[in-house]
Amino acid sequence: MLLSGGLDSTTVMAGARADGFACYALTIDYGQRHRVELAAAARVAAALGARDHVVLAVDLRRFGGSALTADVALPQGRRPAAMTDIPVTYVPARNTVFLSLALAWAETLSAEDIFIGVNVLDSSGYPDCRPEYVHAFEVMANLATKAGVEKRSRFSIHTPLIRLGKAEIVRRARELGVDLALTWSCYDPGPDHQPCGVCDACILRQKGFAEAGVDDPLRRR
Amino acid sequence: MLLSGGLDSTTVMAGARADGFACYALTIDYGQRHRVELAAAARVAAALGARDHVVLAVDLRRFGGSALTADVALPQGRRPAAMTDIPVTYVPARNTVFLSLALAWAETLSAEDIFIGVNVLDSSGYPDCRPEYVHAFEVMANLATKAGVEKRSRFSIHTPLIRLGKAEIVRRARELGVDLALTWSCYDPGPDHQPCGVCDACILRQKGFAEAGVDDPLRRR
Repeated sequence: MLLSGGLDSTTVMAGARADGFACYALTIDYGQRHRVELAAAARVAAALGARDHVVLAVDLRRFGGSALTADVALPQGRRPAAMTDIPVTYVPARNTVFLSLALAWAETLSAEDIFIGVNVLDSSGYPDCRPEYVHAFEVMANLATKAGVEKRSRFSIHTPLIRLGKAEIVRRARELGVDLALTWSCYDPGPDHQPCGVCDACILRQKGFAEAGVDDPLRRR
Repeated sequence: MLLSGGLDSTTVMAGARADGFACYALTIDYGQRHRVELAAAARVAAALGARDHVVLAVDLRRFGGSALTADVALPQGRRPAAMTDIPVTYVPARNTVFLSLALAWAETLSAEDIFIGVNVLDSSGYPDCRPEYVHAFEVMANLATKAGVEKRSRFSIHTPLIRLGKAEIVRRARELGVDLALTWSCYDPGPDHQPCGVCDACILRQKGFAEAGVDDPLRRR
């Protein structure tokens, strides 16, 4: 499973574990400016009993093109959700790169089940969070691989959060007993390593916790 | 375009250049044991006038699973070509990882044309060299990206060699004026940095040059 250490991927991992999956966590160090999420991923992987946790460096900054990796200002405040208004935090083909790497590891492990915490409602500006994209990736994955061609495996891309809003994800995380203090969402932490409170990811997290009626442990610290 | 520095990807790049494309070359340093091909890629990119050449490190050894990246013996002599006999040099999901990274860069560049030198005849053991795989990747790519969703671009995966045998590729390279001394094919060079002459890639290259009636400049040196 792809594990960023954020609320969504942490909830996905906790759910897969509750369903009996042995979890192998993959975190991509892609040059993100919010590098504190790499530490969150390690905390979550340990807390949720990952069989293995690989942090793989793939320096997407070499290609440019996103406020998440480039040294440009991040927008403050929640973006509109129309599909044609794709935010500057979009990283070109990020989920395709991440899922491809997960596929490579899965085939090596003889695993068939790949989990990713995308959701279409609160990420509607990101084309690679939509169900039709995930389906197309799954079709491709089963043509791409030795395991798929030999019919030894049938890869499935699991997206258990794809239809959920942030508040529902917060509630699910609580039901699963996730320690939300371990997770990290902010795109733009300051030098004090605290959430900025004003980036897209902070606004969305705050909204989710508020609607779920749950206090965010990160805000109390 | 994906450029390994081998005969195939070099011929693809020369052809695209002859067709008028401004070429951006992407080479993946994935921990391959035949690291000498990275130097070949740099030579070829310079000789063929790449606008830019990125060598991106993605350490696929972290996942294991292939004789090309692990420290195990490579087979000697040509493998059978039945689809069910996939060679130990298969790297799980390699072309999917490579094409995903090419897609990320292409979107950043506002490029629509991605070139890869796969061919199905001489690589029939590799599922990710088949036309049906390439088509599925292209469908996925156009759902994955901001450029695709906004209909600003229509990504095409170009595979000009997909139906050619090695001898035809050698002939095409010669017609295009490629300096074949710049290219590299061997999977298992010795400490003298010379082709081993006995790995899959050497056997295939020798066969291609012999059938095309062309002397391999690498063998004369």
